[in-house]
Amino acid sequence: MESAANAIGSVPDVAARFKAALRGVASTVTVVTALDGERHHGMTATAFMSLSMEPPSLVVCINRSTLLHDILTSARRFCVNILDESQEPVSVAFSGGLHGDNRFAQGSWSRDQDGLAYLADAQANIFCSKAAAMPYGTHTLFIGEVTDVRFGESVSPLLYHNAAYCTSLPRSVHL
Amino acid sequence: MESAANAIGSVPDVAARFKAALRGVASTVTVVTALDGERHHGMTATAFMSLSMEPPSLVVCINRSTLLHDILTSARRFCVNILDESQEPVSVAFSGGLHGDNRFAQGSWSRDQDGLAYLADAQANIFCSKAAAMPYGTHTLFIGEVTDVRFGESVSPLLYHNAAYCTSLPRSVHL
Repeated sequence: MESAANAIGSVPDVAARFKAALRGVASTVTVVTALDGERHHGMTATAFMSLSMEPPSLVVCINRSTLLHDILTSARRFCVNILDESQEPVSVAFSGGLHGDNRFAQGSWSRDQDGLAYLADAQANIFCSKAAAMPYGTHTLFIGEVTDVRFGESVSPLLYHNAAYCTSLPRSVHL
Repeated sequence: MESAANAIGSVPDVAARFKAALRGVASTVTVVTALDGERHHGMTATAFMSLSMEPPSLVVCINRSTLLHDILTSARRFCVNILDESQEPVSVAFSGGLHGDNRFAQGSWSRDQDGLAYLADAQANIFCSKAAAMPYGTHTLFIGEVTDVRFGESVSPLLYHNAAYCTSLPRSVHL
């Protein structure tokens, strides 16, 4: 463990140290989808968390340089698709492995009444109406009020951790 | 899998369905600490994510009914302590198992130059200066700019998933 005093002395390296610490954080993998009337798109995202139960709401963090950000800026709705541990190929496709509409060839995608794409065999689909957007640095926090939730029986999500796809195991089994 | 049509027909249950879907999401466990001059406190939190690298920043989501929220409202700094998989007792203590200062008897806590408590043997400590606060519903999003990061060699964080403490395993090992 490096000392706090040393770290404070190397402020220019804070971003690199922050990145290194984040590598050790395990996150559930989602694909966020949105449409703005003309365009629809989806992108793999791990920066997602619940916000409140009154009203039911969540927040996703999206890089401003992405097409999904452009679409979310004008979109009224979006969907957070929680990937099951078997859906690593979907995560790969939606994080750059495939481009444009070709992405939607990977996985069982459907459209809802507005044409919003959702992954029908995901662990869960959380449909949101966009409630607020807060830009910060290179990213924007998009807040969604949850309007509908679909889920199946799987509770074994795909995780991303230490630059690898992982799964979650109860500690009593592991130890 | 229940149909979207059925779910839309039961809007009053959206919060319950959202909660059920969130049970299946695995999250890394942290203890967020803060002090406001007179009071210091810490609370277990899984609603944490990175925000941007320019500037290095993160966001935590804290219930407005908590003491930590009171302190964060007037605090200038806070620390996100990423728990190692061995630190389940710390998570339990800081999520209600112990009260007030007694919590800090669980784990190896130190204070930095300002008196801000950090868990010296955590997987990582991410020190932040509070940059913004955005209330929403029952919670507030606190944005922190990262000023210092300490971390050790462990990259095996404590996870909370499906109402149990878990650990992350590479899929190739598990399957």
